Amino acid sequence: MPAPIIDLRSDTVTRPTPAMLEAMFHARVGDDVYEEDPTVRELEETAAARFGLEAGLFCPSGTMTNQIAIKAQTEPMTEVICDQTAHIYLWEVGGIAFNSGASVALLPGDRGRLSAAQVEAAIRDKNNVHYPPTRLVCLENTSNRGGGSCYSLESIQEIAEVTRRHGLKLHLDGARVFNALVATGQKAEEYGQYFDSISVCLSKGLGTPVGSVLLGSKELIQKSRRIRKALGGGMRQAGYLAAAGLYALEHNVNRLADDHRRAQQLSATLAAQPYVAKVLPAETNLVIFRLADEVPETAFLRHLDEQGIRASSFGPQMVRFVTHLDFDDAMLQRVEAALAAMPVPA
Amino acid sequence: MPAPIIDLRSDTVTRPTPAMLEAMFHARVGDDVYEEDPTVRELEETAAARFGLEAGLFCPSGTMTNQIAIKAQTEPMTEVICDQTAHIYLWEVGGIAFNSGASVALLPGDRGRLSAAQVEAAIRDKNNVHYPPTRLVCLENTSNRGGGSCYSLESIQEIAEVTRRHGLKLHLDGARVFNALVATGQKAEEYGQYFDSISVCLSKGLGTPVGSVLLGSKELIQKSRRIRKALGGGMRQAGYLAAAGLYALEHNVNRLADDHRRAQQLSATLAAQPYVAKVLPAETNLVIFRLADEVPETAFLRHLDEQGIRASSFGPQMVRFVTHLDFDDAMLQRVEAALAAMPVPA
Amino acid sequence: MPAPIIDLRSDTVTRPTPAMLEAMFHARVGDDVYEEDPTVRELEETAAARFGLEAGLFCPSGTMTNQIAIKAQTEPMTEVICDQTAHIYLWEVGGIAFNSGASVALLPGDRGRLSAAQVEAAIRDKNNVHYPPTRLVCLENTSNRGGGSCYSLESIQEIAEVTRRHGLKLHLDGARVFNALVATGQKAEEYGQYFDSISVCLSKGLGTPVGSVLLGSKELIQKSRRIRKALGGGMRQAGYLAAAGLYALEHNVNRLADDHRRAQQLSATLAAQPYVAKVLPAETNLVIFRLADEVPETAFLRHLDEQGIRASSFGPQMVRFVTHLDFDDAMLQRVEAALAAMPVPA
Amino acid sequence: MPAPIIDLRSDTVTRPTPAMLEAMFHARVGDDVYEEDPTVRELEETAAARFGLEAGLFCPSGTMTNQIAIKAQTEPMTEVICDQTAHIYLWEVGGIAFNSGASVALLPGDRGRLSAAQVEAAIRDKNNVHYPPTRLVCLENTSNRGGGSCYSLESIQEIAEVTRRHGLKLHLDGARVFNALVATGQKAEEYGQYFDSISVCLSKGLGTPVGSVLLGSKELIQKSRRIRKALGGGMRQAGYLAAAGLYALEHNVNRLADDHRRAQQLSATLAAQPYVAKVLPAETNLVIFRLADEVPETAFLRHLDEQGIRASSFGPQMVRFVTHLDFDDAMLQRVEAALAAMPVPA
Repeated sequence: MPAPIIDLRSDTVTRPTPAMLEAMFHARVGDDVYEEDPTVRELEETAAARFGLEAGLFCPSGTMTNQIAIKAQTEPMTEVICDQTAHIYLWEVGGIAFNSGASVALLPGDRGRLSAAQVEAAIRDKNNVHYPPTRLVCLENTSNRGGGSCYSLESIQEIAEVTRRHGLKLHLDGARVFNALVATGQKAEEYGQYFDSISVCLSKGLGTPVGSVLLGSKELIQKSRRIRKALGGGMRQAGYLAAAGLYALEHNVNRLADDHRRAQQLSATLAAQPYVAKVLPAETNLVIFRLADEVPETAFLRHLDEQGIRASSFGPQMVRFVTHLDFDDAMLQRVEAALAAMPVPA
Repeated sequence: MPAPIIDLRSDTVTRPTPAMLEAMFHARVGDDVYEEDPTVRELEETAAARFGLEAGLFCPSGTMTNQIAIKAQTEPMTEVICDQTAHIYLWEVGGIAFNSGASVALLPGDRGRLSAAQVEAAIRDKNNVHYPPTRLVCLENTSNRGGGSCYSLESIQEIAEVTRRHGLKLHLDGARVFNALVATGQKAEEYGQYFDSISVCLSKGLGTPVGSVLLGSKELIQKSRRIRKALGGGMRQAGYLAAAGLYALEHNVNRLADDHRRAQQLSATLAAQPYVAKVLPAETNLVIFRLADEVPETAFLRHLDEQGIRASSFGPQMVRFVTHLDFDDAMLQRVEAALAAMPVPA
Repeated sequence: MPAPIIDLRSDTVTRPTPAMLEAMFHARVGDDVYEEDPTVRELEETAAARFGLEAGLFCPSGTMTNQIAIKAQTEPMTEVICDQTAHIYLWEVGGIAFNSGASVALLPGDRGRLSAAQVEAAIRDKNNVHYPPTRLVCLENTSNRGGGSCYSLESIQEIAEVTRRHGLKLHLDGARVFNALVATGQKAEEYGQYFDSISVCLSKGLGTPVGSVLLGSKELIQKSRRIRKALGGGMRQAGYLAAAGLYALEHNVNRLADDHRRAQQLSATLAAQPYVAKVLPAETNLVIFRLADEVPETAFLRHLDEQGIRASSFGPQMVRFVTHLDFDDAMLQRVEAALAAMPVPA
Repeated sequence: MPAPIIDLRSDTVTRPTPAMLEAMFHARVGDDVYEEDPTVRELEETAAARFGLEAGLFCPSGTMTNQIAIKAQTEPMTEVICDQTAHIYLWEVGGIAFNSGASVALLPGDRGRLSAAQVEAAIRDKNNVHYPPTRLVCLENTSNRGGGSCYSLESIQEIAEVTRRHGLKLHLDGARVFNALVATGQKAEEYGQYFDSISVCLSKGLGTPVGSVLLGSKELIQKSRRIRKALGGGMRQAGYLAAAGLYALEHNVNRLADDHRRAQQLSATLAAQPYVAKVLPAETNLVIFRLADEVPETAFLRHLDEQGIRASSFGPQMVRFVTHLDFDDAMLQRVEAALAAMPVPA
């Protein structure tokens, strides 16, 4: 029997464990468009309480929770401030413009992280009719393109202070927010004080098959429910999916520390390779690195592939590894061996 | 033990049978955003083949498959022709305008069904800059608001001929297309000749928990895949849901005849009641009727509710019953008894 | 020298009189994007005061003032109520959907006029997530497609009462509002009590070359100024155009009674012709009539054209005449002669 | 009599000369919505021929011609490449998102000018569903925010080669294209080979009161005519404005060299002032400079204002001077005297 494929492309590739599947299989369900699915309701309430917010809305994807949050908190002809590498701008098909008709102010953050000063300087003058008024600031924690970098609580507080002072809303793309919480020791329940909306993904590090929860005030979630309907995100007996989310919130959060430890080990190993030019510090479960010019990324990815290891190109000479629930220590050893065995041009 | 609630509000309320659940939880899955979920792929291919079209795209809801079809086949500042009671216009939150920026020509059909002559007369003069050019015609078969009415094949053929002659696209909202096929004896595989796109719902009569498949040419589906991503409909291990769809396509189509028989019986019983002013002919699984003026619809619905029967108000004095997989003959008897027992003002 | 062409296609075809040109030529101007054009400002203030509203915004067309009013008073995923023949729906290129992302509830009015009961019945249930919430009601006075029909003040008052009670906004497409005022004796300054926004066209009956003024509260106009900029309607030294508007407000309003008298005479003459099947009552300056089946509208229009008279086809067998500043009694006689001379199939 | 105000805020503030006014008020006009205004038609044809393109469309502003060009050459969910300081992105109220639903790739050019290599690197991978496909590249020549910088013909050619190779469209925001042509000696008639669309402003350096012309293929202009209608840019007897444009094309192009000479002199004078930290090289009629930290821009602008001179703040410590038709050598001397007299903190 051949060794299993090791998939480091993303933490979205995980499959539910038997215990999670069991929870799904026994879920109590109802028609969620009529708001009658008890498991969906429980997930929404549990997630909201966890983050200190009033209400939640279960959606089929993190892209949808982000796009709904943006739509609900902007109007066409207004502007969203985010990092120039933000997932909402870069990898959601231009949805800010398409779904919301909103413009973007793209800031050069530090590995995807904005500072309060940057945000404040980017707010448009309301009285100038040439500008779309600024409405929303979006942070991403951890930052995907920034290599899993985390915001400090201080930085979040400062940005929240700026947005409040200027009457703006603050959204958190929390696709990997649990990684940030586990890595920094910050408390989820404090986040509700700072953010008007949080998108929490269940299908990345938490390991569920499908879904994301949007969190916010009751009023925001009510408005969002209609937007979800318009986008086609209203599902019927969604409790089967929600059950996996409930299971994950209970069982799969603390174990993210293992993913982080493995990412750090990969990072150290990579840094020691002669063919690796630079590794971004691995704060959580993402390891982004640049290959030396003499090793084309295609050759490197092919070499890994021959060892049964899959990874993602992340731009010219850039590669991303993502550790997750389906990547264990035995696999880590196999990857390290493969890295060591990479032939390098003399 | 009290008798179970009878839910005639919609065929979306059904819960999977044990056999369907079994199929779901043994599904082989993968990350469908990477197009690697084998069960999703199989469902898409099976559904496409069934309707004589090239390709399919699994989505979280029928609203999403409809809205993607409209988006992919129009541009902002063009127009969609549909019946004035079409689900895409009436119950998708104004999505034609919101998602696609397209205008609507709303026609007064016969119980939701358009004629080729009506369609042709509604096509705008391309050379007049005051008009948005017509791009897409949408039919709904069966028609929801029309009380489950079915198109004749002849009528479909004539409309398809008009749309081709004028260079328009033709979409079918097939939320209940299997009801239409079973009721009329039309063949699914012929539909691909007439329609450029078909939205097939799996969570109504077919009884799955979640999902709809959009069918069309390879090119259309490729374009639609990007739109699905932008709307937030890209799901990861969606094979658990798709497996229910595959099961339903195999086991739950022919049995729709039972739903139709029960609907006809309800229709006949209703027509015999003194407090019912009018019943639309029950062609499939929907029964829409109007109460006599002296019986307020709220009183009627309250009476049913007291008997453990739920139904939907469908406008002033109008009520809709929907038969489905979770409504059997014993329940039918209970409903008939309740209808007979309805107290009527002297 | 041949007799001049008589153009009954529209009241937009008029050319400024020498006195109006003179006023334009001597206008004081400035850069209106900087809000420094004194003539534009005077026109905006004069028009606002005339209609009992706070502020005005000069725009290049009535389509723009209507579209801005709709945009400023709706959001995407909300709904606009209007007559099914309303100019804003029918002849503004689907702009309600395109510019505003808003849906339409299209009502069958009486010659383009809605009743308060119709409006109230069309308001969507806010609590149903399937519906776009209703936000705006638009009236058109006079109604173009309705053949220049006028609203009674009572009807306006009743509709305004409904919109206020439901928290909706009320817009008036006043492309020909001065015709309505002159014909009914209603007072412009009372309109501001009923309407949240009014679009007043200057280039139709009033005879200016270009322009329309949007009227409303200061807040609405401030918001509208930004929308105008985004649509590209911000003009620089627009005072040359605005001067014509000021001239027209002073000199060209009362004379609309002459246009109405001529329209009524045309209407009576038409009604007496054997080849005319029906004439809509001429309340103002529009005369819409249907030709008998044996006289194709193309033949009729060709006959007029040979006499140097131009008119518009208005649908199958329908023709529209519009009287205006450049149509005098001598021309009226020529048209009557031409109508009498129309050869009719035996 | 006090000395006249000197307005260096923008070249949009100019007023027509008596000769231009004379041309305007003798214009032959017609209803341009019916395409019957001979002067508008002549302007459109003249401008198109001048730039080697097929057809033209007269619009009320440069914002409208730009926004129509973007709308006509993109779809929602596609992307536009431009410099991060481009007028279309920065000062058109987020219209790319609002009017077109298109995303933006914002590049850091050299004083507003992109290189072919930058453009090519920014084109998105078509096969990745996370990205909006790239459709349009927009250049601005001269660049406003870049201080009137001009593209070399070589650079334009290289970029055009990239866009063609990738099947993209290339638009020129030519708000000040005549300044670029006069300064570089490039030929307008060659531009049509490189650009699919050109927006030519008439109300900046050319000195007309209102208007801009969009140029392109017949097909593009036909499509654009409908978009103009939807945005509300269809004007009636627009010939009065178009006549000014025709006059300007004949009389006001070559004289731009005088504006450039004056701008260079201002630039040299500014560079010699102790309180000026940096002056961008004055290639055409814009002079952008940064004040030393000890001289707040508000104090500087106040000093000028007291001398009857108006200028624009252009960001913190930044000021912009614009030379134009209404700024002559006598005024230049007054400005130079005022600059020399600016009190500087010891």
